[in-house]
Amino acid sequence: MEIKVMEKVIEANKNKSNEIRNLLNQKNILMLNLISSPGSGKTSLLEQTIPVLQDKYRIAVIEGDITTDKDAKRLNKFGIPVVLINTNGGCHLNSASIAKALTELDLNNLDLIFVENVGNLVCPSEFNLGEDTKVAIVSTPEGEDKPAKYPMLFRNAEIAVLNKIDLIDILNFNTDDFYADLQKLNAGLTIVEVSCTRKKGIKKWLSWVEKKLSIKKESEVINER
Amino acid sequence: MEIKVMEKVIEANKNKSNEIRNLLNQKNILMLNLISSPGSGKTSLLEQTIPVLQDKYRIAVIEGDITTDKDAKRLNKFGIPVVLINTNGGCHLNSASIAKALTELDLNNLDLIFVENVGNLVCPSEFNLGEDTKVAIVSTPEGEDKPAKYPMLFRNAEIAVLNKIDLIDILNFNTDDFYADLQKLNAGLTIVEVSCTRKKGIKKWLSWVEKKLSIKKESEVINER
Repeated sequence: MEIKVMEKVIEANKNKSNEIRNLLNQKNILMLNLISSPGSGKTSLLEQTIPVLQDKYRIAVIEGDITTDKDAKRLNKFGIPVVLINTNGGCHLNSASIAKALTELDLNNLDLIFVENVGNLVCPSEFNLGEDTKVAIVSTPEGEDKPAKYPMLFRNAEIAVLNKIDLIDILNFNTDDFYADLQKLNAGLTIVEVSCTRKKGIKKWLSWVEKKLSIKKESEVINER
Repeated sequence: MEIKVMEKVIEANKNKSNEIRNLLNQKNILMLNLISSPGSGKTSLLEQTIPVLQDKYRIAVIEGDITTDKDAKRLNKFGIPVVLINTNGGCHLNSASIAKALTELDLNNLDLIFVENVGNLVCPSEFNLGEDTKVAIVSTPEGEDKPAKYPMLFRNAEIAVLNKIDLIDILNFNTDDFYADLQKLNAGLTIVEVSCTRKKGIKKWLSWVEKKLSIKKESEVINER
């Protein structure tokens, strides 16, 4: 009996992610699932992204944290809807919690939802939240070997953001190996280098987000025809 | 039936950690379970530790990685036994894999085993491997808020190693908040600041390891009386 419950849970999760995907497609909302180790710069990237894009697009954030509202508070200053999910020890967000968080948002007035996952380079990669795509974030102090050592995220993401590029000169970071490993794992991956603290490289990241938004809008027009 | 299997797995894990603890106590081997995010410096700390201590103590490493033998290869140069566990996607080491790894080591000729866990600040904190204690490693680029945001490891560890202290001047790292948060989580925690690349602060860490080793030896004398 209990294994049935487990299957139901997995099945329910799967259904939730499909439900979420269908719902967001219907509402033409782009959802990006930001995944990285703790401290790689997910919140910092959002702090550089939201103020630029919020004049053109209606944005919300679903903020995943094990405990505390530290990151949610950092984003509150932008005056956009932020829904905080505290996982209470849980190592990743699941589609059930996302489905619940979506009920807190006015989906008729949104273009873009950023999901900031729990800081963890392993577990969140395995869970489909109904997002349009996963965004991998990794920072130079972590070392160039992280894609090779933690490959799942980099295989499943459409874009990898290499943050803290301003530190690269004082670190022993082998850029060639970093790019070569990513190429091996996922030849179609877009890679952008940024420094959130120095506000460098952000435009390339914003262009990618806007391109994803325009593709989503195009599919809306097609849907309405 | 299946839930029984699950209970058995959990029970088996628990028994394995007890078995391991008993075995290592009997052999008077100190086992330290190193836990951190990817790229915080677990392997780098071992690279600074092993060459200094290996003249006085017989050391082995159990190296946990999702995939690749990159870290194991970095430690091979010291000519000590290194057992690599590839978890194939698994987000933490468990006691069953440690028990198996121990069968690869000559436990009659060891004083100290370092377990380098999978890079993950969340999941490995929850699993008892039969270690004497967990060692928390965190690095300055990750930010001072990591203990507050990922508290479990810092509650369960006896020592926290703050690595990459050489970068602190160019980072926005609030040392006061870092120490205050740790004090709140675990008042008895030892904290050492190191830079593995600049070889700074290592002595304090080594002193802590040697103190743990001497306590283990004392209990051996007591056991033999």
